[in-house]
Amino acid sequence: MSDVWLSSLKTDSPQAGFELALKLSRMGVKYTQPSDEVRSKLRPIYEENADSLIASSHVVATHFQTVAAANNYWSS
Amino acid sequence: MSDVWLSSLKTDSPQAGFELALKLSRMGVKYTQPSDEVRSKLRPIYEENADSLIASSHVVATHFQTVAAANNYWSS
Amino acid sequence: MSDVWLSSLKTDSPQAGFELALKLSRMGVKYTQPSDEVRSKLRPIYEENADSLIASSHVVATHFQTVAAANNYWSS
Amino acid sequence: MSDVWLSSLKTDSPQAGFELALKLSRMGVKYTQPSDEVRSKLRPIYEENADSLIASSHVVATHFQTVAAANNYWSS
Amino acid sequence: MSDVWLSSLKTDSPQAGFELALKLSRMGVKYTQPSDEVRSKLRPIYEENADSLIASSHVVATHFQTVAAANNYWSS
Amino acid sequence: MSDVWLSSLKTDSPQAGFELALKLSRMGVKYTQPSDEVRSKLRPIYEENADSLIASSHVVATHFQTVAAANNYWSS
Repeated sequence: MSDVWLSSLKTDSPQAGFELALKLSRMGVKYTQPSDEVRSKLRPIYEENADSLIASSHVVATHFQTVAAANNYWSS
Repeated sequence: MSDVWLSSLKTDSPQAGFELALKLSRMGVKYTQPSDEVRSKLRPIYEENADSLIASSHVVATHFQTVAAANNYWSS
Repeated sequence: MSDVWLSSLKTDSPQAGFELALKLSRMGVKYTQPSDEVRSKLRPIYEENADSLIASSHVVATHFQTVAAANNYWSS
Repeated sequence: MSDVWLSSLKTDSPQAGFELALKLSRMGVKYTQPSDEVRSKLRPIYEENADSLIASSHVVATHFQTVAAANNYWSS
Repeated sequence: MSDVWLSSLKTDSPQAGFELALKLSRMGVKYTQPSDEVRSKLRPIYEENADSLIASSHVVATHFQTVAAANNYWSS
Repeated sequence: MSDVWLSSLKTDSPQAGFELALKLSRMGVKYTQPSDEVRSKLRPIYEENADSLIASSHVVATHFQTVAAANNYWSS
């Protein structure tokens, strides 16, 4: 991927960090399946499947650990 | 999402931290499936499925690690 | 949940910490499915399913990481 | 469980730590399904199922992280 | 595997770190299934399966935690 | 298991650490299913199943976190 899409793990707030975690989760999918068309076709499948949504939320949680640590848990 | 729903990872007690972890788990689902209607339709499915409940509990556990670390495990 | 069920992550021993991790795992399920009746109905299903038991054990392991860190691995 | 089965996370070697991680994984199952009879019945099922074995190995890996940290990675 | 494919976890940027996490995820598969032919045959299966893509993204997230820690979260 | 197969988590390079993570993943399976015959029978099943390979790669990623931390991310 030639675009720059991730230049820092620092965010202004925990919420922005959570949203970065979501982006990282999606990019993990996008690198494996680069076709916008295929991903669009799959979206309605997992978006209406409870187990897929829970699994997606787990990936976000894993990335959020990383982002939160990178921001020292936004402690200051 | 334009609402501010997460301004800090700090909580007054471990239990409040656990409840924040639950909120983070649910927000991970909500960002992926923003429709209240669809999520309401899915709820009775996963709420009565043992494996879905265990998977949900796993996501909570992952977020609780982050929240607990952010609060220095409520040690003081 | 209005009851106080988690006031500290500190425990007297690793084993008590493991048992707290079990409690946290179960509370993750209980918050999502608060009905005692439904959970009772599901119990015989996952308790006799090897994969559900392994998944449950995974959730316990994740919480045990948190509890162990909170207790500095009971090092002193 | 009234028996003392976990008094310390310290082990003499990484291998003993790995074996403790295995024990922790099994105890996670045992607390959820205390019946020796049921667990014996389930054993041949998951022991001959590749995905169950991989999932079991994942639980061990999660506990091994905890045990290794508790032993400062056996660095000295 | 006799080739040197991993000499350092250090990367110039978070994005390069994410791409290293992807490589580590793929190498985990490659060591288990070294046949290029078999992996090629499997690719269209998991690349068009939402749950497989989410699971792949989870592995990337796990490795990204390691790579990010190794780079001190690219903080300087 | 009476053989000594793990005397240290230290490795000379990240790649050797990755290979140790693979070994740890396999040992997690081997302790649960000690029969070489059964494991040999299962191998062609999971080696040609995309989801099993992804799950295996996840276990490796979890162990690699431990090994990398034990080696201080090979930073010096």
